[in-house]
Amino acid sequence: MTRIKHPELAALGRSRIEWATQHMPVLARIAKELEERKPLKGLRVGLALHVEAKTAVLVRTLSRAGAKITIAGCNPLSTKDECAAALAEEGHEVFAWRGETEEEYWENLRSVLETRPQLIIDDGGDLTSLAHRMGVSGIFGACEETTTGVNRAKQMEREGILRFPIIAVNDTPSKRLFDNRFGTAESTLQAVLTITNLQLSGKRVVVAGYGHVGRGIASRMKAMGAVVYVVEVDPIRALEAAMDGFIVTDMQEASRVGDIFITCTGSVNVIRKEHFSQMKDGVLLVNAGHFDVEIDLRSLRDMAKEHRKGIQDVEEFVLPDGRRLYVLCQGRLVNLAGEHSMGHPCEIMDMSFSLQALSLCYLVEHRDEMKPKVYPVPEEIDKKVATLKLLSLGAKLEAQTEEQIRYRSSWLL
Amino acid sequence: MTRIKHPELAALGRSRIEWATQHMPVLARIAKELEERKPLKGLRVGLALHVEAKTAVLVRTLSRAGAKITIAGCNPLSTKDECAAALAEEGHEVFAWRGETEEEYWENLRSVLETRPQLIIDDGGDLTSLAHRMGVSGIFGACEETTTGVNRAKQMEREGILRFPIIAVNDTPSKRLFDNRFGTAESTLQAVLTITNLQLSGKRVVVAGYGHVGRGIASRMKAMGAVVYVVEVDPIRALEAAMDGFIVTDMQEASRVGDIFITCTGSVNVIRKEHFSQMKDGVLLVNAGHFDVEIDLRSLRDMAKEHRKGIQDVEEFVLPDGRRLYVLCQGRLVNLAGEHSMGHPCEIMDMSFSLQALSLCYLVEHRDEMKPKVYPVPEEIDKKVATLKLLSLGAKLEAQTEEQIRYRSSWLL
Amino acid sequence: MTRIKHPELAALGRSRIEWATQHMPVLARIAKELEERKPLKGLRVGLALHVEAKTAVLVRTLSRAGAKITIAGCNPLSTKDECAAALAEEGHEVFAWRGETEEEYWENLRSVLETRPQLIIDDGGDLTSLAHRMGVSGIFGACEETTTGVNRAKQMEREGILRFPIIAVNDTPSKRLFDNRFGTAESTLQAVLTITNLQLSGKRVVVAGYGHVGRGIASRMKAMGAVVYVVEVDPIRALEAAMDGFIVTDMQEASRVGDIFITCTGSVNVIRKEHFSQMKDGVLLVNAGHFDVEIDLRSLRDMAKEHRKGIQDVEEFVLPDGRRLYVLCQGRLVNLAGEHSMGHPCEIMDMSFSLQALSLCYLVEHRDEMKPKVYPVPEEIDKKVATLKLLSLGAKLEAQTEEQIRYRSSWLL
Amino acid sequence: MTRIKHPELAALGRSRIEWATQHMPVLARIAKELEERKPLKGLRVGLALHVEAKTAVLVRTLSRAGAKITIAGCNPLSTKDECAAALAEEGHEVFAWRGETEEEYWENLRSVLETRPQLIIDDGGDLTSLAHRMGVSGIFGACEETTTGVNRAKQMEREGILRFPIIAVNDTPSKRLFDNRFGTAESTLQAVLTITNLQLSGKRVVVAGYGHVGRGIASRMKAMGAVVYVVEVDPIRALEAAMDGFIVTDMQEASRVGDIFITCTGSVNVIRKEHFSQMKDGVLLVNAGHFDVEIDLRSLRDMAKEHRKGIQDVEEFVLPDGRRLYVLCQGRLVNLAGEHSMGHPCEIMDMSFSLQALSLCYLVEHRDEMKPKVYPVPEEIDKKVATLKLLSLGAKLEAQTEEQIRYRSSWLL
Repeated sequence: MTRIKHPELAALGRSRIEWATQHMPVLARIAKELEERKPLKGLRVGLALHVEAKTAVLVRTLSRAGAKITIAGCNPLSTKDECAAALAEEGHEVFAWRGETEEEYWENLRSVLETRPQLIIDDGGDLTSLAHRMGVSGIFGACEETTTGVNRAKQMEREGILRFPIIAVNDTPSKRLFDNRFGTAESTLQAVLTITNLQLSGKRVVVAGYGHVGRGIASRMKAMGAVVYVVEVDPIRALEAAMDGFIVTDMQEASRVGDIFITCTGSVNVIRKEHFSQMKDGVLLVNAGHFDVEIDLRSLRDMAKEHRKGIQDVEEFVLPDGRRLYVLCQGRLVNLAGEHSMGHPCEIMDMSFSLQALSLCYLVEHRDEMKPKVYPVPEEIDKKVATLKLLSLGAKLEAQTEEQIRYRSSWLL
Repeated sequence: MTRIKHPELAALGRSRIEWATQHMPVLARIAKELEERKPLKGLRVGLALHVEAKTAVLVRTLSRAGAKITIAGCNPLSTKDECAAALAEEGHEVFAWRGETEEEYWENLRSVLETRPQLIIDDGGDLTSLAHRMGVSGIFGACEETTTGVNRAKQMEREGILRFPIIAVNDTPSKRLFDNRFGTAESTLQAVLTITNLQLSGKRVVVAGYGHVGRGIASRMKAMGAVVYVVEVDPIRALEAAMDGFIVTDMQEASRVGDIFITCTGSVNVIRKEHFSQMKDGVLLVNAGHFDVEIDLRSLRDMAKEHRKGIQDVEEFVLPDGRRLYVLCQGRLVNLAGEHSMGHPCEIMDMSFSLQALSLCYLVEHRDEMKPKVYPVPEEIDKKVATLKLLSLGAKLEAQTEEQIRYRSSWLL
Repeated sequence: MTRIKHPELAALGRSRIEWATQHMPVLARIAKELEERKPLKGLRVGLALHVEAKTAVLVRTLSRAGAKITIAGCNPLSTKDECAAALAEEGHEVFAWRGETEEEYWENLRSVLETRPQLIIDDGGDLTSLAHRMGVSGIFGACEETTTGVNRAKQMEREGILRFPIIAVNDTPSKRLFDNRFGTAESTLQAVLTITNLQLSGKRVVVAGYGHVGRGIASRMKAMGAVVYVVEVDPIRALEAAMDGFIVTDMQEASRVGDIFITCTGSVNVIRKEHFSQMKDGVLLVNAGHFDVEIDLRSLRDMAKEHRKGIQDVEEFVLPDGRRLYVLCQGRLVNLAGEHSMGHPCEIMDMSFSLQALSLCYLVEHRDEMKPKVYPVPEEIDKKVATLKLLSLGAKLEAQTEEQIRYRSSWLL
Repeated sequence: MTRIKHPELAALGRSRIEWATQHMPVLARIAKELEERKPLKGLRVGLALHVEAKTAVLVRTLSRAGAKITIAGCNPLSTKDECAAALAEEGHEVFAWRGETEEEYWENLRSVLETRPQLIIDDGGDLTSLAHRMGVSGIFGACEETTTGVNRAKQMEREGILRFPIIAVNDTPSKRLFDNRFGTAESTLQAVLTITNLQLSGKRVVVAGYGHVGRGIASRMKAMGAVVYVVEVDPIRALEAAMDGFIVTDMQEASRVGDIFITCTGSVNVIRKEHFSQMKDGVLLVNAGHFDVEIDLRSLRDMAKEHRKGIQDVEEFVLPDGRRLYVLCQGRLVNLAGEHSMGHPCEIMDMSFSLQALSLCYLVEHRDEMKPKVYPVPEEIDKKVATLKLLSLGAKLEAQTEEQIRYRSSWLL
């Protein structure tokens, strides 16, 4: 079974998947290995991911490894209908379209679980959380793609209710450093520029949250000529931001000076009524964190005397005194939810999805010894992916000499 | 009369023009002044510009100043049909659509000249050049937007065949520094990211030409984490590139290492057969200069054993040995010719078009004293626009004290 | 007892210590707290640190906390004689001067241990190592300042020979992020510019090692307009360097293109004969790692047909074919060993030494429960120091709301 | 005759001059050409320059070209006594030492003019100005090194009192772009770091003046992690600063937030009483402009309740409310006047002094046709120096094809 919106776009989707494939050489190589070994032979894998071209390359990889795939979106706005169509045409079960309602979104996740998957790849933790609430059994384990999802899984582990092992793909250096930092930065930039056609140089940009995502965004925004303010709750991260040359302040102060606000905290209501009330006319409100809860849209709707659709992916909120605040993509992930938002670069997802594919196989191969806990990605997988990526860039790795290996393991020197 | 493609898109166009208007405060203020004075009352103005939202704001401004407007595109691919529709609906004569053939392009320019304009705004010099070849009379003068167009006008002046004064809007500091450097850099980045969904960090980017455009692109590409190579024919510019931290080399060497090539020289056949023949598999060929002649596409077509349409705005050329070279937007201005290329940021065009509007009025007011020569923008216009822009950013200008003014004009100290 | 070189410089030393004190507000505040509590009352503390102004502020702090201090240098070249003089004048036991021989260096460390210290602060692990080799007893514990020293301590722990607890001050985020990254970068830059009077923009700089120190140096060198190459043995670090926009290659290739080589690996013979033999004429060889073993000076001496003193802190090695290679500061820490090398900025050492002072007190207070192991700095000390520093910069920390704290600890969302 | 302070330091000076020579390859090559041609044979050349190692290389070059040299300093604090000694020892007439009084400074310039030079190289315009006030005759012409000196010469030209031609070496692209921008930025950074041992990352730095010098300093300070504020009187420059990502404001506002203030305006009393009165405790006041008039030291002295010598090259002014303001190098050029300030990098002066040497020869060769006016450096000299420099860096220049040359000179396209 499959539920998609535009089956007629399959050819377009194939073309985009083909392009992505060419720029994901690490995953291509892993796909070839897995096709020979077939470690997922006969297994049902349920995915909740952004349904677009790079993800389709992962789907094909898992399929070549022997798996039977069902996929739903992990965000109501991030599905590219042409890619959903191409995947459906290839025989995968797809439950996803751009512009799902809240209800349809959950209904689609439920459809994935109803196929009784033995393995899960999740992005944000909704599928995992739903599996627990539905009491689904027979799941060997899951891989989780995001900081948000890993945090939720750890909370479940702490509460003692986690029912299967979860590999925190997000937490591995190869994922966090590259996907969260470089991927989100480039894709957020692309999305904001494409949606607004506004200039970054000379702007005051407020970045809320200085984790890997915030670090990447702040650094690229500064590089583009913006003056960047960082708002952070952790003193060590805040201090790092200060030494990186950003102006570190609280949202109360930042809300008076910013032109563009970008949230990436993983938290809730980071920009609120007291902040909206003192913003300048014409500011942009943008979310690059996982869920659409970082900007308190409910309050904004309550405060506004007028609320209307602006250009594509922009809503205008007019405050009683005439100031206009613009929300991009309904406060959802700007780099995926916009009509022409492209998501992370292919080369970045090449790494993240290589980690996913290998971790999934690891789950199968070690299922007997793994407990319902959150596990890190095995170091050898992380190093393997990083090394392959490095070579694909044409870079060279220095080899250690025998003497150096000895030296590094001695305290006498 | 009007020739456009999608009159039904007028509402969409109006919405985009409205958005642009909100982000062009300097031009808004000038429009208000001009509406009161009506310096262009009853004059016919012919435009050859990229027909999109920011240009529409200029059209409206000139119209409020009293002019009767006719407009054609200055590039076969850069028209946004929804904006053409909105302008047509407002009663302006529009000859432009996305995807004109070479013939249609020139036919449209001809239609503009057939309205016997008294003033011209040109972008690249084709309209001016055509006016001369057609022997059109009655033109008081023209304003030119680009380096390419100014160079051509100067050449005509040197050859003694120029028939009316041309104000080199391009050459004023407020235009060159901001439009050519910052505008093209941001819009090129937006276009490349949107078309390809590829990553910039870690890439080798070759920038051909280190004028204002090249400088902007090189600097932003480096800021995004690319390793940037600069190819330049002028020793002083080349040296500046080297001290700015770029690797300066010739195209022969650069063509062996680059992943992305961006031309912005204003010259012809900058990347040629001998370069294609040694490029890596999968490189991107991108033009950000005015005309589609910087990449020698004819040779590339001859060399390729296969040539096919890839994803939107990308053509794939397969060389006999299997290497694939990708050309974006048919070698035309990537930041305008792509389907989702947004052109310069609104705030940048706010300055450039403010200069255009004021320079056009200056042409009218000084038409008796001006000769068929290339003129700079009067300094007071340049400073006025820069000052208004500065204030719109919330920045403050330091005032000189009496003592300082005296000091700066004394040699005794 | 005390052994120093220039007691007559004490006044100059006091003036520099006074300046440093003014720029170490966090340590000043901690000194005040400790002076009231006197947690080190009557304890003998032995230090092996760079004997210069900032260290003197730490010595005074520990002294105000009640300790009796003995100090030796941790590098034969890094002592500032005027500061040694000032400390001696104040009654501390000082065994340090600029330009110690290898023998004198170890003799001075021995003198520190002969005072039978109960607590140690070490920089690089030589004092700790010597204490073990001498079989000194009565030491409650030590704090270690560097990556090198911590690695050695961990090796001792692994081998089961460690005799007292060691707090790895180096490893705490507040130290590594700031001291290793920002401190070394600025001080290395200062030293290289001061010693050589050469230009960085346009140079090819090779950075060996992409740990915190290498990251800082590479980033600042690039920011100054250099083209930076990174040589690294770890694939994940190497990949990070590539995505940060550096050219990642091996030393074999780098040695052919570099103008300036900076080692910061913590390893040995990173630049060797095979590399010297293909370097360009006039290259600079610089070490910013802990010990003077990263550049293989023995081989260089063997290869050179001539070896002579150049300008201050520079040695010239002339190879048989006439190429000249310049070694700075005898291959020792360039940012400390040069005559006018200033070491880390005061504000950086404010943090590192605040961590040292508080960790030392922690060792005393928890001596009964601590084992001969390597311990991390307690998180509350780390956060305290970061928070105080942040406030001293005038930055503001965002507070979490109740709702946010709840949200972050829930998996249901 | 010669007046210097430390003849015993000649050997040290020779060693530094030797080092500089090795890093000034362009000047070395020009010296060789001039030595063969002897275009300055028998001519008396009077110099007012910073008497240090790079300048000594110029002196030797001119001497090899046949000239008889007399030299004085152009700043009371910038002479390196060891280099003065080395030059004197070689037989040049030297009137310079570090720490001249105002009177001695002018006396030394007078001594140069008393040798009746036929050619002058000046830095700042004091020697030229004095020659006019003394009514010295027999001068063929002069070359001027700085923006300040050129401005003064142009003022003299406008007033009709200029008595000989002056070549504005400062104004040539090869000088301004490189010396003023990159040279001053690196040397100012070196000087501030060396004098203060303070940290740049995380600091608020206020740069007054956004000419070439200001641009360089602002850009490098930002690159080092500072938050940079720019104060400027010209709207176009101010706007450029804003788009370059700096915070543009007036001194009134900047004086409340800055930690470090750097003046490079060429103007007078840029930082004044009303600014001092609201600065934070502990700020640094630094001048990188030509004369010591940019910071209003007289007012500061009047306001201070206490004024004392701090560490080397730092004066402390204590305001009545206890705030301390620190002035570096008595408000003189920080990059030359500090005891360990190294001045511009050798490679930069290689270009500037090559331009000087060739311009001086040009003056001799064209003396009959040149009038008492300010002349630009002939373009061929500028291009020659840039090309030689480029090659010395190992960079490659792209050659234009015949087709490209034709294309660039046609308006038909």
